[in-house]
Amino acid sequence: MYNLLKGKKGLIFGALNDKSLAWKVAERAYEEGAEFVLTNTPVSMRFGEIHELAKKCNTIVVPADATSVKDLENLIDKTMEHFGGKIDFILHSVAMSLNVRKGRTYDNLDYNFLGKTLDISAISFHKLLQVAKKKDAINEWGSVVALSYVAAQKTLYRYNDMADAKAMLESIARSFGYIYGREKKIRVNTISQSPTMTTAGSGVKGIDGLMDFTERMSPLGNANADEFANFCITLFSDLTKKITMQNLFHDGGFSSMGMSLRAMTMYNQALDNPIEPESYDE
Amino acid sequence: MYNLLKGKKGLIFGALNDKSLAWKVAERAYEEGAEFVLTNTPVSMRFGEIHELAKKCNTIVVPADATSVKDLENLIDKTMEHFGGKIDFILHSVAMSLNVRKGRTYDNLDYNFLGKTLDISAISFHKLLQVAKKKDAINEWGSVVALSYVAAQKTLYRYNDMADAKAMLESIARSFGYIYGREKKIRVNTISQSPTMTTAGSGVKGIDGLMDFTERMSPLGNANADEFANFCITLFSDLTKKITMQNLFHDGGFSSMGMSLRAMTMYNQALDNPIEPESYDE
Amino acid sequence: MYNLLKGKKGLIFGALNDKSLAWKVAERAYEEGAEFVLTNTPVSMRFGEIHELAKKCNTIVVPADATSVKDLENLIDKTMEHFGGKIDFILHSVAMSLNVRKGRTYDNLDYNFLGKTLDISAISFHKLLQVAKKKDAINEWGSVVALSYVAAQKTLYRYNDMADAKAMLESIARSFGYIYGREKKIRVNTISQSPTMTTAGSGVKGIDGLMDFTERMSPLGNANADEFANFCITLFSDLTKKITMQNLFHDGGFSSMGMSLRAMTMYNQALDNPIEPESYDE
Amino acid sequence: MYNLLKGKKGLIFGALNDKSLAWKVAERAYEEGAEFVLTNTPVSMRFGEIHELAKKCNTIVVPADATSVKDLENLIDKTMEHFGGKIDFILHSVAMSLNVRKGRTYDNLDYNFLGKTLDISAISFHKLLQVAKKKDAINEWGSVVALSYVAAQKTLYRYNDMADAKAMLESIARSFGYIYGREKKIRVNTISQSPTMTTAGSGVKGIDGLMDFTERMSPLGNANADEFANFCITLFSDLTKKITMQNLFHDGGFSSMGMSLRAMTMYNQALDNPIEPESYDE
Repeated sequence: MYNLLKGKKGLIFGALNDKSLAWKVAERAYEEGAEFVLTNTPVSMRFGEIHELAKKCNTIVVPADATSVKDLENLIDKTMEHFGGKIDFILHSVAMSLNVRKGRTYDNLDYNFLGKTLDISAISFHKLLQVAKKKDAINEWGSVVALSYVAAQKTLYRYNDMADAKAMLESIARSFGYIYGREKKIRVNTISQSPTMTTAGSGVKGIDGLMDFTERMSPLGNANADEFANFCITLFSDLTKKITMQNLFHDGGFSSMGMSLRAMTMYNQALDNPIEPESYDE
Repeated sequence: MYNLLKGKKGLIFGALNDKSLAWKVAERAYEEGAEFVLTNTPVSMRFGEIHELAKKCNTIVVPADATSVKDLENLIDKTMEHFGGKIDFILHSVAMSLNVRKGRTYDNLDYNFLGKTLDISAISFHKLLQVAKKKDAINEWGSVVALSYVAAQKTLYRYNDMADAKAMLESIARSFGYIYGREKKIRVNTISQSPTMTTAGSGVKGIDGLMDFTERMSPLGNANADEFANFCITLFSDLTKKITMQNLFHDGGFSSMGMSLRAMTMYNQALDNPIEPESYDE
Repeated sequence: MYNLLKGKKGLIFGALNDKSLAWKVAERAYEEGAEFVLTNTPVSMRFGEIHELAKKCNTIVVPADATSVKDLENLIDKTMEHFGGKIDFILHSVAMSLNVRKGRTYDNLDYNFLGKTLDISAISFHKLLQVAKKKDAINEWGSVVALSYVAAQKTLYRYNDMADAKAMLESIARSFGYIYGREKKIRVNTISQSPTMTTAGSGVKGIDGLMDFTERMSPLGNANADEFANFCITLFSDLTKKITMQNLFHDGGFSSMGMSLRAMTMYNQALDNPIEPESYDE
Repeated sequence: MYNLLKGKKGLIFGALNDKSLAWKVAERAYEEGAEFVLTNTPVSMRFGEIHELAKKCNTIVVPADATSVKDLENLIDKTMEHFGGKIDFILHSVAMSLNVRKGRTYDNLDYNFLGKTLDISAISFHKLLQVAKKKDAINEWGSVVALSYVAAQKTLYRYNDMADAKAMLESIARSFGYIYGREKKIRVNTISQSPTMTTAGSGVKGIDGLMDFTERMSPLGNANADEFANFCITLFSDLTKKITMQNLFHDGGFSSMGMSLRAMTMYNQALDNPIEPESYDE
């Protein structure tokens, strides 16, 4: 709508279906004049929806397991081939915890699963940046964004080992942001987004109650996927060149709230009838 | 019980009655072998309870309006006279908002009241430090502590202009902590305490609901006044000499929580029957 | 260039001359299709440069002392008259410390000066928001931005009572952001900008050394006024609707740095010849 | 000296030699009346110094690889056998990066090494907590402390993947602190310590320059190992029962400093002769 990304080339991870944050970013980036390559794991492509998106955005899909340096090397090569040169932006929206999926509580983690959580949700971001830098794949003043969540700072029950992965992800953004900034003028940031009803989000047990709470805590309400995409576009644009190594809260104000009148009004209903959790086995 | 403050001399602001945080600190400091002078505003002394405390702790009370440099000068002089020398620790537990008391909402502040809120709750801390430094009243490696609240970082409805005052108070602790540290090796910190059922706390509308929420959010529950006193003693002791310019959360974990199972269980009761605040006039 | 602010109306404080951050924001907002009213104190207008800017941007100037509720009421009235309706964005770039100007050190503050520092640099922001809200002057999803500095979080010698004012300013942005968000969907944020060679900045003693240090610490270097303006535009646009109550670092990465190789290389030169400050009287 | 830990039983990781933070903690804990078991990796014991410490403190050493759940299980079993019951405190002071040791820069990480860095420096803490909880090894109101560093928040060149490990370590302290707090009233915190001339510290290239800088930035100077031990004792004592899920800066004020006069005075010497790093290969 504004041509904010006119002439820019990018790479977008994590568009599973039209509820995905990455899907919305792709649509908006396309509207703003960007060209980009889409990627996701081979497994997540089996439903084929990403190809619809690719068609719509007039682009290609390159499958890659984000934990495989080899796959990432191939992805970057293919992307640079596609464009005949370097790119300007990357969105990393990749996360998964087998401990969460398999119902392991945080005091009963499977350490192989934890290793995978970290590899998929945090280390993959380092691998991507390292491969991109080695291949000199990003233009000066390029922009890299990864998706985070407030659990990196504050503990939310059930978020489990993903909290630790997000804390590490944000640290990687700072650590690599320093290196990539000083040498190539490339910025690296994370967006800490409201809980969102993506396919991933809707699989989280108890997400309804949490989203009601965060909605009522946040003066502007939860941020949705369309709004995420809009904000993401500004971070890819030339208007935010000096923002780097930051974790930016895009959450309707939630991260700065201690208690709102709306949430307290709901909570107070329960005061006459205090109840305890049935168990901690979750 | 441990003689942690044996031989130490101090000055304690804000002991109104036996529910006060400062009262508990005085009792514990006395047990730990400290001597100290008590002070409060002339007005708050009219009920006379502070004199009971003074008797119990075998000490004197020097009235002072903490917003008056003259009163503070007199207080420091009298305190040094009393001890025949310098002191080792100070507790600043002084705060008041006329906007809160008079029911002015945050979008309808009286700016004279705001000036008083800042003067009483934040600037008084600077005045105290400045007077103490000018009179060279504190021994090397002395320790100064002021009472803060998480509202300095996160907005809690109804906490009103006290939030801004606490943010400023914590900034003063940093700013003066730098100066006092480099020149006199004196440390300056704030403790961010759980909401507590002091006389001040119990006057806050809706404090019950909030305290139930923070109790259930905090894995260790709210910290009470006795526990505050214990922690405060460690900060006055020789065991924490290199901690300065910090805001230390003493809150059972609340400040690091996003959502607990216990609080969510309560909140979820209300999901079937969502209600809205009757008005925002508060 | 992008029409990002097409149709938007605003109000801009603090354009003194063409080095001012606010001046650059005005120029960029104009380029992006916005209309706005300019304001500054009567005193700062005596050099007349703001009128050049007004001409260039085809607008008017309404003088106002930002500490005067009456002036702010008049300003808002005039602004709404000018547009025949509500506005969409406000930039608050107003700060001054007489303690700094008069060379008072932080342990020798004049408390009248401190009162003025707070009134000009922090409370003025509350007054502006309160007046705007009472007059219902801002459209839904409007955006208000104030200028802050990292001194709100970290102590920098010589920044003096401005640090406390900025801490309070950021707190006001949160406190009022909650109220204005829940009732009118208006967002309130602060931008924490690199030290900048504005007229205000260049008056700070020792700014050269500090700017060299922050330049070498920041992987992307210091952010300048043009870059500030670009970022500010994104916050006024419709692309950042769910960002509120935030302090956003626009500083080339400085705020996330502990030590860079470039800064350390400079510092290490001095290791063979360690020197101490001549005095702390500053 | 105060009997602060009288009757308390503990477990201390990481005492390599008399420069180690953990060594000092052991000595101080012993002085304060605690009993404890010492542990370290079999490899680090080959110089035998830990046995001197054990003798001095009248205790035993149980070798354990902190990354091995089996070793940790054996360690906890042996410790509980030794005491005939549960313990009250644990110190985790375990960290190592092969990427740092082998001179791999952060944009050229070996991912096997990174896996080890995380396993040794962060995941070992989770494993320890999980094993301890499963074996119900810690008494109610027990205290667990791990050693962190400011690199978890701010990037310091050369600190490399240890920064990400420390960020994750602090997240684990929060995540497990929630679980262990709500179910067993056990608190979990990290101490973020000044750079210290331990055997580990002295191996870091360029540590001299950095320590000079942090010494001059910190109003109270760097915190040393003895001071660390003192602070650690307070966290193991009954005086800090409601502090949990926190990262506590014990650093002479460094973490709250933006720029000190002393550090700037040194830095300014280099302004006339600006130099650049010879290379970024470090």
